[in-house]
Amino acid sequence: VTVIGIHAGAGPRSPKLRDHYDECHDALVRALAAGRELLERGADAVDAVTLAVTVMEDFELFNAGRGAALCTDGCVQLSASLMRGADRAAGAVAGVSRTKNPILAAAAVLASPQVLLIGDHADAFADRHGAEQVSPDYFVTERQLRNLRAATTDVSTGTVGAVALDAYGVLAAATSTGGIIGQPPGRVGDSPVIGAGTWADRHAAVSCTGDGELFIRSAVARTIAFRAEQGTTLADATRLSLEDVESLGGTGGVIACDAHGALSLPYTTEAMPRGVWRAGAEPQVWVTEAM
Amino acid sequence: VTVIGIHAGAGPRSPKLRDHYDECHDALVRALAAGRELLERGADAVDAVTLAVTVMEDFELFNAGRGAALCTDGCVQLSASLMRGADRAAGAVAGVSRTKNPILAAAAVLASPQVLLIGDHADAFADRHGAEQVSPDYFVTERQLRNLRAATTDVSTGTVGAVALDAYGVLAAATSTGGIIGQPPGRVGDSPVIGAGTWADRHAAVSCTGDGELFIRSAVARTIAFRAEQGTTLADATRLSLEDVESLGGTGGVIACDAHGALSLPYTTEAMPRGVWRAGAEPQVWVTEAM
Repeated sequence: VTVIGIHAGAGPRSPKLRDHYDECHDALVRALAAGRELLERGADAVDAVTLAVTVMEDFELFNAGRGAALCTDGCVQLSASLMRGADRAAGAVAGVSRTKNPILAAAAVLASPQVLLIGDHADAFADRHGAEQVSPDYFVTERQLRNLRAATTDVSTGTVGAVALDAYGVLAAATSTGGIIGQPPGRVGDSPVIGAGTWADRHAAVSCTGDGELFIRSAVARTIAFRAEQGTTLADATRLSLEDVESLGGTGGVIACDAHGALSLPYTTEAMPRGVWRAGAEPQVWVTEAM
Repeated sequence: VTVIGIHAGAGPRSPKLRDHYDECHDALVRALAAGRELLERGADAVDAVTLAVTVMEDFELFNAGRGAALCTDGCVQLSASLMRGADRAAGAVAGVSRTKNPILAAAAVLASPQVLLIGDHADAFADRHGAEQVSPDYFVTERQLRNLRAATTDVSTGTVGAVALDAYGVLAAATSTGGIIGQPPGRVGDSPVIGAGTWADRHAAVSCTGDGELFIRSAVARTIAFRAEQGTTLADATRLSLEDVESLGGTGGVIACDAHGALSLPYTTEAMPRGVWRAGAEPQVWVTEAM
């Protein structure tokens, strides 16, 4: 079986999603198709989730890459991570601000001896490895400045991510985020934290979205995979972790895929734009709808 | 039972440890005594592990705080994290360079809505919360510049940490590091990664040291606690995780304490300076000796 699942962040059924339903739907369809096409051509799961996330990073209505939320100082601080299940190779960046697609920076780190690089050094590393650099105004758009000015303390989180199982039986997971609108500069959530926002091993691949601090304190992604390794169904494992996040006072969502190609995409918020494709079936996409 | 365990990094039985045996022994004794005194006066486990780590950060022969290893560019980038088991409150900083005691920055983050802050913003946050700031030459000593010039690509890691169980039954874990001698600027290891280098919940508290990238890819600290939660003995849980790190090609050590006051301090390197104290018993300290 070959499978890919994507998400564009758990959060409220916001005016943004309702007013721009078609654009969001189209972005999800394109991200899923990009990943699917690679998988059908025999590419591996790491490349498929990376490309799917890249497409979502380039779409300005999702909170990652181009559409990243701004910090209180009006700057962006982007984070992303990527993990391959077969050997648990991992790469992550936090606090980048010039790399157009942070997931490509994470991919470059995955191929290096390091696992996590932060700040300007991470941008410079990405640049040296061919990841396109952009000026701040690529991210700091009029739309985002309006969002920042309008932001209350209770804002949607949002993040994008993908999980896949390829034809060689390898699982992979990828996550990318702009953080929270109006977050303090220097704040990092769960997205670049291997074990919290992203995890892949031989049993499961997981990408998370939600209240980042609580996802770290619950080690959501690693715990789901460990439960799957021990024989818990993926549906039960993801439910137990979201219940644990809830016990800490938070909400969010996860997408998870296991070694048999089972997918689980639960969330405890109003909405989680998401999509799935399985070899031999039609792709499915949801923007504000329940499953 | 009231218990505290400390470590000052797993690595080779280096000339540094042999030539400065008495100083290292004394630093461990002082760190353990500082934590013990707080616990005996009824302080909580978070304060005890924080103080014990502070003492080790101030000792210039351990790779954390004052004694931090230098990056290739001759600068320091310090990381630390702290977690309280009762409610899994957590705080971590990565890439700080002006905060004298990074574990105090982590403690300030633990008390905030955030969990992880990075870079200069983390220093500024620590400063605003009363953590002493120092000029770079506090860390960039003649000794460290000599170490950097002498460093080969295969150098000891080292990190300091503490775990404790207090009189109220609360577990806590703390870890602080200067990274690896000659690491690329921006590189972050497992120490500030909650779930990798540090974890505490109601079942166990864990602080790790070793090949940081592999400890992240093994989610060592969280996995040990999860196994303890499921009934695996602490000795088995720590052994299984070190075996997993070994399967990825690395070595290191962990100190772990469970809710019954059991301690486990295994390592797969030549040495791990460490110490333990248990209410009603004499403190014990090892520098280069096996248990």
